[in-house]
Amino acid sequence: MKFELSQLKFNEQGLIPAVAQDFESGTVLMLAWMNLDSIRQTLTTKRVTYWSRSRSTLWEKGATSGHTQELIEFRYDCDNDAILVLVNQAGAACHTNRISCFFNKLVNENESIILE
Amino acid sequence: MKFELSQLKFNEQGLIPAVAQDFESGTVLMLAWMNLDSIRQTLTTKRVTYWSRSRSTLWEKGATSGHTQELIEFRYDCDNDAILVLVNQAGAACHTNRISCFFNKLVNENESIILE
Repeated sequence: MKFELSQLKFNEQGLIPAVAQDFESGTVLMLAWMNLDSIRQTLTTKRVTYWSRSRSTLWEKGATSGHTQELIEFRYDCDNDAILVLVNQAGAACHTNRISCFFNKLVNENESIILE
Repeated sequence: MKFELSQLKFNEQGLIPAVAQDFESGTVLMLAWMNLDSIRQTLTTKRVTYWSRSRSTLWEKGATSGHTQELIEFRYDCDNDAILVLVNQAGAACHTNRISCFFNKLVNENESIILE
């Protein structure tokens, strides 16, 4: 069906949350943010590109580390306000060198453990 | 390790994005938002509870539809600004009655298809 990127709902900063999931293993790798430009760059280059909120710049994942994310599928949700990218992850997704950024498990309100 | 919920980074609305993933299948079900109260309620009741931005109220997933999410694991990411809940999903996660909210696949900048 016809769909325009402008139908995605960006927040007041022009951003939309994007979840990256490993296409083969199903592991949820990270959550980051995209703007319209980063979405276009992701679709064109097939290299997942986010918007870095800390550096206020386009952030091609792995451009410096080599830990790139090859885009396999670009999905969006039922109310157009969240993105799911299925990727081939090269190396670790997390800057801590772990496969996933979600390595902290909350045990209770006051305690957590590191999973790997 | 010691961890306090206040170490999570909430946005200016007091919210943090939360991704729900089916514990068994690995399917990414949805992305919604939590505040501190909804996190506490989730941990206490083991029923995943979000903050409804449209209704400005706590939203126990499935409280009316029966499509509850039993909490299996509560994780947070490396920079404390995103949550991943692993859940046992009862029925469909999406209000469209699909298992996952991420059923739209972008083919290119101007076209998408519905996956299921």
